[in-house]
Amino acid sequence: MPTVLDRRQQLMGSATLFYEQPIEIVRGDGVLLYDNKGNEYVDMYNNVPCVGHANPRVVEAMTQQMSTLNVHSRYLHQGILDYAERLLNLHHDGLENIVFACSGTEASEIALMTARVATGGQGIICTDATYHGNSSEVRNMSIAGNSNFPQHKHYRAIPFPQKYRPLQAGLDDDALCNLYLDKVRAAIADFEANNTPFAGMFVCSIFANEGLPEVPGQFMAKATEIVHAAGGLIIADEVQAGFCRSGDFWGYETNGFRPDIVCMGKPMGNGLPLAAVAASADSIDAFRKSSRYFNTFASSPLQAAVGMAVLDEIESRDVLQKSSAVGEYLRQALYALQPAHAMMGDVRGCGLFTGIEWVKENNEPDRIGAVAMANKLKDKGFLLSNAGALGNVLKIRPPLVFEQKHADRFLDTFKTVLNNG
Amino acid sequence: MPTVLDRRQQLMGSATLFYEQPIEIVRGDGVLLYDNKGNEYVDMYNNVPCVGHANPRVVEAMTQQMSTLNVHSRYLHQGILDYAERLLNLHHDGLENIVFACSGTEASEIALMTARVATGGQGIICTDATYHGNSSEVRNMSIAGNSNFPQHKHYRAIPFPQKYRPLQAGLDDDALCNLYLDKVRAAIADFEANNTPFAGMFVCSIFANEGLPEVPGQFMAKATEIVHAAGGLIIADEVQAGFCRSGDFWGYETNGFRPDIVCMGKPMGNGLPLAAVAASADSIDAFRKSSRYFNTFASSPLQAAVGMAVLDEIESRDVLQKSSAVGEYLRQALYALQPAHAMMGDVRGCGLFTGIEWVKENNEPDRIGAVAMANKLKDKGFLLSNAGALGNVLKIRPPLVFEQKHADRFLDTFKTVLNNG
Repeated sequence: MPTVLDRRQQLMGSATLFYEQPIEIVRGDGVLLYDNKGNEYVDMYNNVPCVGHANPRVVEAMTQQMSTLNVHSRYLHQGILDYAERLLNLHHDGLENIVFACSGTEASEIALMTARVATGGQGIICTDATYHGNSSEVRNMSIAGNSNFPQHKHYRAIPFPQKYRPLQAGLDDDALCNLYLDKVRAAIADFEANNTPFAGMFVCSIFANEGLPEVPGQFMAKATEIVHAAGGLIIADEVQAGFCRSGDFWGYETNGFRPDIVCMGKPMGNGLPLAAVAASADSIDAFRKSSRYFNTFASSPLQAAVGMAVLDEIESRDVLQKSSAVGEYLRQALYALQPAHAMMGDVRGCGLFTGIEWVKENNEPDRIGAVAMANKLKDKGFLLSNAGALGNVLKIRPPLVFEQKHADRFLDTFKTVLNNG
Repeated sequence: MPTVLDRRQQLMGSATLFYEQPIEIVRGDGVLLYDNKGNEYVDMYNNVPCVGHANPRVVEAMTQQMSTLNVHSRYLHQGILDYAERLLNLHHDGLENIVFACSGTEASEIALMTARVATGGQGIICTDATYHGNSSEVRNMSIAGNSNFPQHKHYRAIPFPQKYRPLQAGLDDDALCNLYLDKVRAAIADFEANNTPFAGMFVCSIFANEGLPEVPGQFMAKATEIVHAAGGLIIADEVQAGFCRSGDFWGYETNGFRPDIVCMGKPMGNGLPLAAVAASADSIDAFRKSSRYFNTFASSPLQAAVGMAVLDEIESRDVLQKSSAVGEYLRQALYALQPAHAMMGDVRGCGLFTGIEWVKENNEPDRIGAVAMANKLKDKGFLLSNAGALGNVLKIRPPLVFEQKHADRFLDTFKTVLNNG
């Protein structure tokens, strides 16, 4: 009898997996997950089921719509328009039109094409430790699986802005910010020197994959000015940052800038494949006209109904305020642990998204230590993972309905593991 | 009060739409759709809801799974393995491993990457009237929105094989087939001359977008030999062709060849975003290792449960046999109309997929006539569309649960419109 792991290898090849001893999850309920042996886990990792695993309102909306109608978008349907309007009303005024898709990768593709058709340029600035999706084009600005990144002439990677491991030590906040801005200026100059017309800058609004760094100065607001002055557009990837994750509804609010194009994804449909891109009416229309874009499964009555139910849950359960408060509560407790636990080199985050940078002496990054912590915590019933440019950041990003009681439960175990290994 | 059409333009820009007077569909049931005014339509276009709009078994599976668990694939889950195994068992033996995705575009991306990593080549042959998706890379082999196609050095387009408008008149079947095969040989030679290592040939198994042509000789079997001899792989796009559409379970069976890589999509989830790529274990594993591919929404318990329900419906309702029979019944009735209606230049197809090539005198393609027919038939309660390389092919591709009574109802109206305009 082959194990489930053998069977997986046999049918799917070397697909990526979490944990040294992977777990077989069979049921979810709110922020709790259960494995095939009946073990309970507090989910402190999954941002997709933002309003909780098996959320009844979402299930009901899905069932209702699926038993009524689900067709493609070349017929008219009010549901998708109501949802589009509601989403756009949650954004700043410059984001006027929307395109729906099925995944963050598809949203990144649309955003790239929109920026390029709107500017007539090709050159895109990204960071050196990012991930925006898995298509051939989007992979050009993703570090995963790219040993020599970025290689494509249309991309330049800048060092991501951070205070914990700054590009240069001893600078004050504004000087450090300016050093990172110089990298933006240099990338634009380099595109110009290579006759690659500039299209814009593509970043996660809170630099989640980079390890959720504390950003020096007004980096994003100032980078936006620089990019605009060079004729480029700012593309904010809100796939991880958006939908109340960052303590604001959008990560671009948290990091204080106003993007021209926004990608949305993961939590939008609480697990239903659903993503979107918003931009100015002119930009979206230019994209649509140049591409005749059509997406079989997107802009559907099903996506609309489920997306609406997620927004209903977020609003009716006061998710923004509550998740921000519990995130802050958790961080305060973690700050308090730092003095006695030198391996917790940096605790940082926003909203219900926290990173703990795991270090050895002299702040040397300790990826192995972070991975070991994730495995130990898993064995004790708490699911999280490691992330960040150096893989040494414990990533705490639970469903948004995570409560103080779950934080307390986690903190008890976390302290035990810290003290006893 | 803005109309729904104005509102759509205002929120979504110039998104693509069907019909001169677009319709607002509010409900579906089996092969029937209903608009906001209560009008009933027989759906003769949609292949996605293959086992019928609002299929109860699919809705039940979706509801059940969504209220139990839906998480990403970095945990273990038996459901996705059972589904993977069942899908692979429906294919020929050389297709051993599978990667799940959310859309046909994502499947095309995976297939391209897999062919390239498996061969070490880049050059891809496609046809000159195809569409395989909307990402930056996949668009290189799609005619939609590409005025000057293909431009990219990694792609060569061959004339799609057909008998109705053959590349050269007066040839017998084998000679015509060989003429099209010469184009494959020439493309391979051209890649070689330009130092572009060859990766393979990417085609819809039944050339659906090309207008569902009758293919001369054993074109695909022989093209497969030629491609293999040059070190390339054959990628079959089964997104339209697969899941019993063509009269066999897979279009590659209908057109008599054995692909190395297969893309699946549209009907797989009856409307849930679900797609997949199957290939040899070595090819898939090489792809996974080179890319560290991960897809947030794919390979999920939800996709597995819904995909299983679709296969259950297909098997328990004997969809393959029944849909093939009704497709053949419909074509026979259409053949009988041809002698008295010269505009029906060619009637062709396989399974429950039929094209009627609309022509003027001397077989001149009549796109305007085909579009007018689609609009008239819509006004009388039958939804279909035009397609094909020249846009003059009436495309009849109903849900697979379309029955003889629906065909009869359509034929009555079709004859009336033919005779009275």
